Amino acid sequence: MVEKIVIALGGNALQSGKGAATAEAQLEVVKKTCEHIAEISSRGYEIAVVHGNGPQVGRIVMASEAAKDVTPAMPFDVCGAMSQGYIGYHIQQCLKYALNKANKNVPVVTVATQMVVDEKDPGFANPTKPIGPFYSEEEAKALQAEKGYSVKEDAGRGWRRVVASPIPKKIVEIDAINKLWDSTVVISCGGGGIPVIEKANGQLEGVAAVIDKDFAAELLAEQVDADTLMILTEVEKVAINFNKPNQEDLSTLNLEQAAQYCEEGQFAPGSMLPKVQAAMKFVRAYPNKKAIITSLDKAVDALEGKTGTVITFS
Amino acid sequence: MVEKIVIALGGNALQSGKGAATAEAQLEVVKKTCEHIAEISSRGYEIAVVHGNGPQVGRIVMASEAAKDVTPAMPFDVCGAMSQGYIGYHIQQCLKYALNKANKNVPVVTVATQMVVDEKDPGFANPTKPIGPFYSEEEAKALQAEKGYSVKEDAGRGWRRVVASPIPKKIVEIDAINKLWDSTVVISCGGGGIPVIEKANGQLEGVAAVIDKDFAAELLAEQVDADTLMILTEVEKVAINFNKPNQEDLSTLNLEQAAQYCEEGQFAPGSMLPKVQAAMKFVRAYPNKKAIITSLDKAVDALEGKTGTVITFS
Repeated sequence: MVEKIVIALGGNALQSGKGAATAEAQLEVVKKTCEHIAEISSRGYEIAVVHGNGPQVGRIVMASEAAKDVTPAMPFDVCGAMSQGYIGYHIQQCLKYALNKANKNVPVVTVATQMVVDEKDPGFANPTKPIGPFYSEEEAKALQAEKGYSVKEDAGRGWRRVVASPIPKKIVEIDAINKLWDSTVVISCGGGGIPVIEKANGQLEGVAAVIDKDFAAELLAEQVDADTLMILTEVEKVAINFNKPNQEDLSTLNLEQAAQYCEEGQFAPGSMLPKVQAAMKFVRAYPNKKAIITSLDKAVDALEGKTGTVITFS
Repeated sequence: MVEKIVIALGGNALQSGKGAATAEAQLEVVKKTCEHIAEISSRGYEIAVVHGNGPQVGRIVMASEAAKDVTPAMPFDVCGAMSQGYIGYHIQQCLKYALNKANKNVPVVTVATQMVVDEKDPGFANPTKPIGPFYSEEEAKALQAEKGYSVKEDAGRGWRRVVASPIPKKIVEIDAINKLWDSTVVISCGGGGIPVIEKANGQLEGVAAVIDKDFAAELLAEQVDADTLMILTEVEKVAINFNKPNQEDLSTLNLEQAAQYCEEGQFAPGSMLPKVQAAMKFVRAYPNKKAIITSLDKAVDALEGKTGTVITFS
């Protein structure tokens, strides 16, 4: 049996370094990212890819608002759909090439994905998801006053705009994703999916929210019956006492320990916390399966049990 | 045997009337469009959808350029990918709902689609594809002088920016589309596909061009083995002597007649001409199949042989 893995790509898999905001810079980073993903595929794993879109959708919103005297600004759900096209296109182009180089002739495709959220989700009352660029505290507070943005300090890295981050409930296009999964590397649920609510008559309606891509990846992993949920981020292992002298990197983490650390506030909201929570949700749903949190360049090693943080039920 | 139809949606299927440039207005038009498409599906036809993106990608480019001091402008291929996300999202949301109302519980999904074009295509030397809004002659000439845009007069409706429109050669994601086709309504090749060229090492690279969505739909129809290529536009039938006192609407058109009319310049470049040419290409490739050009609200009647222009080999 082939091991099936849903891979969630963090922001650092899509951009980094100088000029990171340009499409050209993103393409260069995505090329390298896709070599790592192709390496996983060439080891015989069957994969699906989910990616974040925080900085990208933030910039699309900014461009759309800055240009509103020239052409009407786009609503947030449409900006999310646009970011799925933008990022998905880059990944499918680069991943197909990287797979070809690794002699894996497998189709790669991006599926525009809507994600149903609950209109009554408490997330809408308490925005936590950072989008767009980092600001100084002063700039952030000015935006709050001028534009009514919610702003928050983000893990010691600066201030950012935050929007609602409701829990994903249903992947609208799951049937199509399941049809493709066996034969094709599917890129789906980009940016956690385009957030929609379901009206009483069954009609879907886009809403202003960013769904956490790790929770979206978790839901996808459940629904495509994946063996492993792999969340790739900037660090090789999950740590407690992060950035403190007594920082401790974790090789394994079971549900009980994880719950304890969450309660202690060990993991930053909007950063490591949702990753750990998504991993916990997956192993709670499938006690015989595992989740892995590690960095992109350690992904293959982590799959071989050499590094990363493996989250299990017990 | 179920009759399989590739439907190419023209600009009027996506927007019209006041405030047409907003996403909200597009969504309203798409809702009505999707009721027509669902009606086709509920008559027992198996369908795939291709759509244009001229005005939308034009506005995305405009917004991106207008905001370039705030966030870097996106290259044209990325703008195309973004328009596929934007339009595809609206269509898949509305079409799924319309199909549900018609008691057709079939998945609907948008596939981000790259289209390989030839780097040496003469289209790059002679831009013909209109994008973005209509301008007065004066405005158009000013843009030509200021920004180096190519501009052209468009079928008596005003002036527009034109970009290269190379012939589509290869649908990169065709395998995935074929896997979905039997079970799922696939929206693909949006805006004719994201234009890419294939480098010597096999790597794809985005280029600045808009591929005619009718030619893209034709190529798709060939490659998914469709029975009928249906091109939906603003008029019920193709006409010769269009907008003249002796205008004649055509119910049928064979290859020989069509070639004659093309030679006479009966069809406007960038408007009816590519539709007729795409239809001709399809019946030339499959002499036993047909193409239909008609309006959205006459599509069902046309499929039943009551109206529209049916293009056949002989």
